[in-house]
Formats: sequence, structure tokens, C-alpha cells
Amino acid sequence: MTDSARASGIVAADASELLAILRDGVPRTRAQLAELTGLARSTIAVRIDTLTETGLVAPAGDDVSTGGRPPARIRFNPDSRVVLAIDLGATHGVVALADLAGTITTSESRRLRISDGPEAILDWALETAERLYAATGRPLGDLVGVGIGVPGPVEHSTGLPVNPPIMPGWDRFDIPTYVRRVFDVPVLVDNDVNLLALGEHALAWPDQSELLFVKVATGIGAGIISGGRLQRGAQGSAGDLGHVRVPFTSETPSHGASDADLEALASGPAIARALTAAGIPAASSDDVVALARTGNAEVLQAIRQAGRDLGEVVATCVNLLNPSLVVVGGSLSQVGEQLLAGVREVVYQRSTPLATQHLTITQSRSPETGGAIGAAIMVIQDTLGVASRPLPR
Amino acid sequence: MTDSARASGIVAADASELLAILRDGVPRTRAQLAELTGLARSTIAVRIDTLTETGLVAPAGDDVSTGGRPPARIRFNPDSRVVLAIDLGATHGVVALADLAGTITTSESRRLRISDGPEAILDWALETAERLYAATGRPLGDLVGVGIGVPGPVEHSTGLPVNPPIMPGWDRFDIPTYVRRVFDVPVLVDNDVNLLALGEHALAWPDQSELLFVKVATGIGAGIISGGRLQRGAQGSAGDLGHVRVPFTSETPSHGASDADLEALASGPAIARALTAAGIPAASSDDVVALARTGNAEVLQAIRQAGRDLGEVVATCVNLLNPSLVVVGGSLSQVGEQLLAGVREVVYQRSTPLATQHLTITQSRSPETGGAIGAAIMVIQDTLGVASRPLPR
Repeated sequence: MTDSARASGIVAADASELLAILRDGVPRTRAQLAELTGLARSTIAVRIDTLTETGLVAPAGDDVSTGGRPPARIRFNPDSRVVLAIDLGATHGVVALADLAGTITTSESRRLRISDGPEAILDWALETAERLYAATGRPLGDLVGVGIGVPGPVEHSTGLPVNPPIMPGWDRFDIPTYVRRVFDVPVLVDNDVNLLALGEHALAWPDQSELLFVKVATGIGAGIISGGRLQRGAQGSAGDLGHVRVPFTSETPSHGASDADLEALASGPAIARALTAAGIPAASSDDVVALARTGNAEVLQAIRQAGRDLGEVVATCVNLLNPSLVVVGGSLSQVGEQLLAGVREVVYQRSTPLATQHLTITQSRSPETGGAIGAAIMVIQDTLGVASRPLPR
Repeated sequence: MTDSARASGIVAADASELLAILRDGVPRTRAQLAELTGLARSTIAVRIDTLTETGLVAPAGDDVSTGGRPPARIRFNPDSRVVLAIDLGATHGVVALADLAGTITTSESRRLRISDGPEAILDWALETAERLYAATGRPLGDLVGVGIGVPGPVEHSTGLPVNPPIMPGWDRFDIPTYVRRVFDVPVLVDNDVNLLALGEHALAWPDQSELLFVKVATGIGAGIISGGRLQRGAQGSAGDLGHVRVPFTSETPSHGASDADLEALASGPAIARALTAAGIPAASSDDVVALARTGNAEVLQAIRQAGRDLGEVVATCVNLLNPSLVVVGGSLSQVGEQLLAGVREVVYQRSTPLATQHLTITQSRSPETGGAIGAAIMVIQDTLGVASRPLPR
């Protein structure tokens, strides 16, 4: 979290506990909130008044009366504020507005090249955002924050991309300052895979506390949910799998490279190169997906082998993290079962029995806007103070 | 946490917040506690009375008076209870008693063979524990729980070792039930590396929230602290590095095994085998450490190479977890700088710049009783309800 975000959180720390309870959408009476928190009725009253003034909570009709005047119930009011979510991939971009429940209310997407550089890309995103926001007719004061995902490593505390391999021109570009010239609210930046993990977790697997999300597209990366939380590591670069060395074994076919990173073997462009070399022209992840849909046996075999190479690294991740769920997403995951089959084949062979006995390896269930949903959730968790509550020591 | 532990926690959930604050050892007045928690004075009074009755907190003399009767201060009372900690390695065992601050008050250790099986080993540990406990002269009711570390994977929810490679006879042995025949209190079991990580974190690096502890001895394993908490994964087997495949590169010398997992290359016995094959007889980690102290160049070179092999896997862990600190412990870490130098050489070469720019790779600072301290801390966090507080969603 940036200092600016911390300073401009829209809820005082001491009200976030009530909000964390009410965010499940269930209306509650003051008495129920007092019982759940152990807070004094007078404290509850003051904090509910504060939250009501901000519009974050609202009266929700009356509870069933137990005689006498029925007690008023309070509910979370997700429509009270707006979040701007911008999800930038290597070749696509999504700009979306969401409510405080993380539900997207409007969005627009287009193909782009992240290598066009930060000004060109962000100018498009910000102009689109201004237009979408204007169409809502809401005052700018309703915007609580901007969440942005980019396809490379980000120092989460500052929002700066650091040595992003596929983002020429973006190294240490000050995205938050650039965005705040237009929208003067907290701006949080993270890599797109972390946001896909946040979105997938919130949408499809809210009850799983140990989830590894692996994105396979132009690049390869992972987002780690451990103990129910996104784990970013010390500088925010956790999950950087693309440059991990793939363990070679005697069964591994030679790829013509003895020192290969995972991305050099199993990314969309890597599969496309292998296919082109075998006489099947392909240039991108999308080409590979299109070829796979024709059912060409050689293409399916190349994808299966990429799945095995990915599986070698995922097997290490499974031994290290012991997730209950590995979710494979990204554009290449649309090739269907061959990629997952390759991953499963190696993971179930390599990882320890305790780590795999209840392990599910599955395809992402998020829609195309999964990254934007994750970006919105990042902002919501931060500005509502829910995920940034200090852990008890 | 086992259900039995949950049921017999010595503090009600609603009092654990106060205890979490007071555990730092600073005495506080009821007014200060009310301010820190937002709880009503009347709620504070009830909870402090409950905690005082259990002996967990006690009056701490009076605060500086601001006129009138000085307000009474309350302090945490770590001597009020006793924790039994049993740390079992492949070839050694420690039995210790600790207070509620995790400070060891008495301990005994001996060499053993974990392969002698659970009854023989646990009988020794329990007889030793009974003797140490009797010598304290305290009633059995003061014992809040037993923490046990074993050198293999443990299903943390049940306390059962699952397919532990170097613990013949222990597979699915019901350690908690066996121990409760003697000490009828909650019994928590974890693998020894997780407990070393907990102990190292509490003793030497309490302010670091991202720490990877790697133990190199007869086996190799890791304990992961992310977001300030020990991450055990879904079944409790997180950190199982011993059977991870080592990535081979064109620079890697052949070890005569093309499909080697990490333990087959870099553990104490693996180095001993390599030295023996080179005409320098060695049979164990201890032999390797002793040979290293003679300064033999061939021995130091073999250790350096083991460090590099370990570094190949640690590099993957660093990319995946982005820790600020990698701590190398275990008996083999006593060989000195050659092992660490090999690890550093590969990690700084392989891992991404963002992950290594502030990374420290260092030797464990824990004493020989580090694992026992970790076992005590596991029990304290669990029975005082501090680490088991549910995270806000």
C-alpha cells in the first residue's frame, strides 16, 4: 500500500472492523454488531453514524420485531462509491468501473501493444476512463481509487514497474503520479497475475485459502494466495515464474536449449516458435490457440509438452506452497485440456503425496474482465482498510 | 490446529485481543487498553478480570499518578503456565520446558535415531519430560500444551506424519493420542523445519515479514514466513524442498545422476557419498562438518558445489516468494561460508533483480534449541488464540 493510499483511506481504522462484517451483504442490527465485535453499544452507535455519513452503510429496513419498536438494521452500500480498474496485458487492455463489492458496472477493452510505452497506453486508458465515468453522471468525489495491472514486475509500495522484460519504456515509470494528474485519488499498481489471482479467488474460490494462479500467455507468472491473502513478498515480485529454470530430466526431450527459462519453453511465443520450426507457421499465443482448435496432432503434442515443462516448475511450487488448488489461466489456457493434461502428468508424478492427495489442477473460471475485477478488489481491500489491518503478532 | 486444541484453548476468543497487546511485555492501564482496542471500559474490566483469574495477566504496580488514586496497570504474566516442547531430528532430540514468552526454562538433549520408531523415541521424550516437569514442583494443571517437531511431512490438522522418508515406522502414527496418555493437554505436531522457521523468526527477525528458512542436514526442507505468518499450505506440507528437481544447466557438473532431487545432491549424506567416492571417507553431515574444519580444499569444493545446487532451488524459491531474508540452518550450515557462498553465487545470478536487490542470505542465528523454541511458540500462538484469529476477508 502506498502512503498516499494509507493517508486517504475512506474509513478510519476503527470502523473497518464493522465494515468487514457488513461487507458480506447481510443487514444487521446494532445489537447484532455489538455481539459480534464485543464493542460497546455506544461505540457501535458512533461508528455506524460515521459510516452512514460516508454513505458506505445505509439503513436496511427493520428487523423482525420482538415487541415494541423494531430495531433498525444496517447494510453495506456497495453503490456508494466507484472504483476505476485498468488491466493492461501485453496485447490487450481493459478499462472498467466497479462498485465496492467488486462488481463491474461498465467496461471497455481493446487490443494494444504494451511496448508502445507508458504515455500512449495510459493516455488511452485515462481518456477511456474519463468518458466511462462521465457517462455515469456521478461526481468525481465518488471515485475512491484506481487499481492498475501491468504485465511485469511491480514494486508494490511505489507502484513502479522494475525491469519489466516485455514492457520497454516502462522501467521505473511513475504510473501513480501520471494517473493522479487526471484522477487525484490513491493509485495502486500490481502485476496483472496478482490481480488475476485476486479476482479468481474472490469470484470462484472465496473459501479456499491456499491457491496458486498460473497465467500462461505471452509471459508466464503466478499469483499466490496463502492463508487467504495475496502474498506479494518483500518487494512485490512474488510469483515471478517466467525466469525460473526448468529442471531437465532424462525423459525431457531436448528443446535445443540446455539453459532454458520457463518462458523460453512454455509461453505462447515459445510454442509458436517450436511450431514454426516444425513447418507450422505461428507467431503468437492466439495463433497457437487457433491452431489447437483445428485438432492438428503435432500442435496438440507441442502444447502437451509445454504443459509438461510448465508442470516441472508447478511441481516445485506445489512442494513449496502445498496449495489445495492450482488454477491455470491466461490466453493459452484456452487451448483446452492438452495444456492442463501435461501439467497434471508431471505434477502428480513429481510432487510429494501429501501435497497432491487433495490437489485440484483446473482451468481459470474468471471472465475476460478477471484482471480488472482483481484490480478493483485490490483498491477496495486497501481503501476500506480490510486487508491492510495489521496482523496480531 | 487440531479440534482438541481449539476446544481447550485457555483464553476465550474475545480476550485474545487484549492478550495479544499485552504479550509485548509492556504494562498498561485499563484506560490505555480501552483506547488501543476501542472496547468499552466495562468490557475491558470483565475481560481483564477473566484473564487475571487465569493468572495470564497480573497487576504490575501503579502508573504515574495524574492526581488522585493512581490507575492500576496490568501486565502479561509469562510464568503463569508451562509449555512442553519436543524437537526430534533424524539423529538428535531435545526435550524442553518453556514459559508463555517462549523462553526455555529447562531442557535436555541426546543423540538418537529417529528410525528406532515412534514408541521408543516418544517413550524417551515423555519420560524425560515427566522428570523435568516433576523437578519444577508445579502442578500438572499449569501445562497448557505440548509442541512436537519431527523430521518429515506432517498433516498439521491431525498431527500425523505422512509418508516421512527418513522416519520408518512413523507413517500415520498417532503422535497426539500417544502423548496425551501421559500429558492430557492439546498436542500440536509439525515438521521440524517449520518450527525452526518460527523460532528463528521470533528470536532473531521479529520485524521481518518475509523470511525463508532452509534447513540443510540429513534432509533438506524449508519453512516459509509470508505476511508475518508461518505458511503451512493446505495439508501442512509447504516447504518440502528435499524432493524438488534441481535444474541442470550447461555449467552444472555431472553428479552421475541426471534426475536428481535436491536431497540427493546437497544434503549431508549426499556430500559424504561424493567425498567417499573421491577417496575421502565420510558418512554423515557431522563427518562433513568435521572435514570442512580441517580446511581440505577438495572438501570445501564439494561443499561449495552443494551450495550451488541448493542455490538453484533457492533461486526458484526467491523468484516465487520474494523473501527479504533467506536463512540457512541445520547441522550442515556449520561448515561456514562455503555453503552460503555457493547459494549466493547462484541465487544472485538466477533470480530477478527486483527479488534480489534487498535480499539477505545469511546463516541461522538460532541456538541448538531453536526447534524447541519454535515448538513452544507454536503452542503459545495456538492456545493463546493469537495466531488463530481469523483473518478479515
